[in-house]
Amino acid sequence: MIIGAGFGGLAAATALRRVPVDVVVIDRRNHHLFQPLLYQVATATLSPAEIAVPIRRVLRHQRHAQVLLGEVEDVDVGRRRVAVEELVIPYDFLVIATGSEFSYFGHPEWAEYAPGLKSIEDATTIRRRVLLAFERAEMAVDAAERERCMTFVLVGGGPTGVEMAGAIADMARNTLAPDFRRIDPAKARIVLLEAAPRLLGSMPEDLAHYAKWALERRGVEVRLNCPVEQVDAAGVTAAGERIESTSVVWSAGVAPSGAASWLGVETDKAGRVKVEPDLSVPGHPEIFVIGDAALAKDERGKPLPGLAAVAHQQGKHVGRLIGHLARGDARRPRFVYRNWGELATIGRQDALADFGWIRLKGWPAWWLWGAVHIFYLIGFRNRIKVMIDWLWAYFTFRRGARLITGPPRC
Amino acid sequence: MIIGAGFGGLAAATALRRVPVDVVVIDRRNHHLFQPLLYQVATATLSPAEIAVPIRRVLRHQRHAQVLLGEVEDVDVGRRRVAVEELVIPYDFLVIATGSEFSYFGHPEWAEYAPGLKSIEDATTIRRRVLLAFERAEMAVDAAERERCMTFVLVGGGPTGVEMAGAIADMARNTLAPDFRRIDPAKARIVLLEAAPRLLGSMPEDLAHYAKWALERRGVEVRLNCPVEQVDAAGVTAAGERIESTSVVWSAGVAPSGAASWLGVETDKAGRVKVEPDLSVPGHPEIFVIGDAALAKDERGKPLPGLAAVAHQQGKHVGRLIGHLARGDARRPRFVYRNWGELATIGRQDALADFGWIRLKGWPAWWLWGAVHIFYLIGFRNRIKVMIDWLWAYFTFRRGARLITGPPRC
Repeated sequence: MIIGAGFGGLAAATALRRVPVDVVVIDRRNHHLFQPLLYQVATATLSPAEIAVPIRRVLRHQRHAQVLLGEVEDVDVGRRRVAVEELVIPYDFLVIATGSEFSYFGHPEWAEYAPGLKSIEDATTIRRRVLLAFERAEMAVDAAERERCMTFVLVGGGPTGVEMAGAIADMARNTLAPDFRRIDPAKARIVLLEAAPRLLGSMPEDLAHYAKWALERRGVEVRLNCPVEQVDAAGVTAAGERIESTSVVWSAGVAPSGAASWLGVETDKAGRVKVEPDLSVPGHPEIFVIGDAALAKDERGKPLPGLAAVAHQQGKHVGRLIGHLARGDARRPRFVYRNWGELATIGRQDALADFGWIRLKGWPAWWLWGAVHIFYLIGFRNRIKVMIDWLWAYFTFRRGARLITGPPRC
Repeated sequence: MIIGAGFGGLAAATALRRVPVDVVVIDRRNHHLFQPLLYQVATATLSPAEIAVPIRRVLRHQRHAQVLLGEVEDVDVGRRRVAVEELVIPYDFLVIATGSEFSYFGHPEWAEYAPGLKSIEDATTIRRRVLLAFERAEMAVDAAERERCMTFVLVGGGPTGVEMAGAIADMARNTLAPDFRRIDPAKARIVLLEAAPRLLGSMPEDLAHYAKWALERRGVEVRLNCPVEQVDAAGVTAAGERIESTSVVWSAGVAPSGAASWLGVETDKAGRVKVEPDLSVPGHPEIFVIGDAALAKDERGKPLPGLAAVAHQQGKHVGRLIGHLARGDARRPRFVYRNWGELATIGRQDALADFGWIRLKGWPAWWLWGAVHIFYLIGFRNRIKVMIDWLWAYFTFRRGARLITGPPRC
């Protein structure tokens, strides 16, 4: 049984393709989401369906696999059973791949004003707020109101914050500028707040430095050492300074979703389950935790980062391991993460790539970033359509999904 | 000033392209929606962004045109002013193109259980309900619950009801059937209810007869003379019979949106404004009402139908007329509707076409239907992407936008 069909859960399920075991995949959503491109939905370049595939479709030819849409209520570790909605399903092996949620540092009330970017609904909510802000600025009678609408605050200088800041800057200057009559969207104020003294904590210092320079060249105000103290409907207070804004996006902290509480096992401060070298749970060799929900360590004892690549490799490892165990092979090799490199994009023609032995920045990294993301997308149709959208945006400076949907007021 | 950027409003705005007048277009939405393909969003073939374009983008090169996103609160006919949110804007000519809404025959409480299909939110709501129904059937422990989930009721046998019934039948049998393990989606029960003794009231009788036959061949139960008496969370009662269903879609009655109340002028029973032959409002030569909001008549005194083609031609007529009036030409030619024909689709390889002099049905009408709709879509990118989605669905029987988004329960 696999709970969660993100990168980790789906990799575990497909690794069991040729193994004669029954696989049950449970998810709250009917779709697997390609999260690395979610910010492009939030900034109106891509449509949700282009980065999501129905879980059922991915597993349709795997006749021994079943997909259930539902919320897991509880796991009975003793009797090896999982309660999903009205069903109670027994398992022999359990894989927990429930991912992470945003953490608001003990201020859950901020979530309302500063949505994070995890699901399709989050992305369309942020898209609505950002596009509506320009519309409201165009309608505004009051100058202060106009300024508040045209100020965008990104909290957190990780990959998502950097991507969003760059994308909003590009959108305001290239896409929206010719479409408005009263305001000049190119004058939008975009502020990126980071509590640490540098951006992109997981990347080498020189690339982080380049990212700051590249964002500033786009007109983004990058504030380092600037922890957020308050978030409300009218703006943000950070390091003592008040920034009035109607559009705040959160990408500061992540915490694992509450799956660990089902197990009653030891976690780190953030709530991640401490796993054995083979990714099983201490004392429960039949339960595995992977991806953002797990605290796995590399050979040197350093925790592995919360990346899609880590989750994917862990899922594959656990899927294969269960295959071997089911066939009676009792060996339990440790999980070894192969770091193929890390990419982050800043904006049009601008990205970062770190492969350890080589570092790229600017347009070569950007083209590489595009190629890699097209390659890893699931589904031929999605690849074609994302390519069309990107080429379209590249040549015309337009964005294909400039829709304001949902409630009329933000 | 043009209120509403549907087919009529946008045609009026673009007809004023080369005229030296200031054009203000007001809409509640930031996008123009290609409604004839909306049912394909509801049935998971297309993405919302593929059939919608930002109104600003359409009018971006028209430097004298401005677009305002907002709700019109009132029209002051005497002082010639419109109140939009906080603004009050004067006009010389006013075009009301506010379209129509669904009418629940005096039962507004049915709207909650039986959404209509007018906006993108409606389409994604219906998509969620239909896809969730199959998911819930797969999870259901109780046989009656499973049956209720797998019953789909379409109220109204007009083009939308026929299209939706055919599309749900095709989706269940071709797309979903191989993806489920416990249920057989091909066994879904699809019921089309029509109060009149025939389907597709605006089309010739033999085509309507063919539509009924073609739907029944797809397994759809077509019930004529079957007015709906009750709609609630668990199903529908029609002509005395109870049909248990969790997915009811409304396409029975339309009523103009409340724009007529601004004017205080004479309307028909349905609320449409009775207009002069030149589409102006009696007593107000500076105000025009077009599209679904107007009751215009052809030469023989027969009311014009609520079609996109009528609205478009009326918009063009009014735009040109205002252009001439602004230049000092006081002639006011009457509006003449040129009926180029009517198309309706039933499902894969199956449609109807009526050109007066020739009638087509089956696959020739279907290919023609596709070509015409691609042609009338706005935007090269949208055309390419819709074509890809259609070819994809045609050859693989898959649907590209099978996403359940929004609240987890329907």
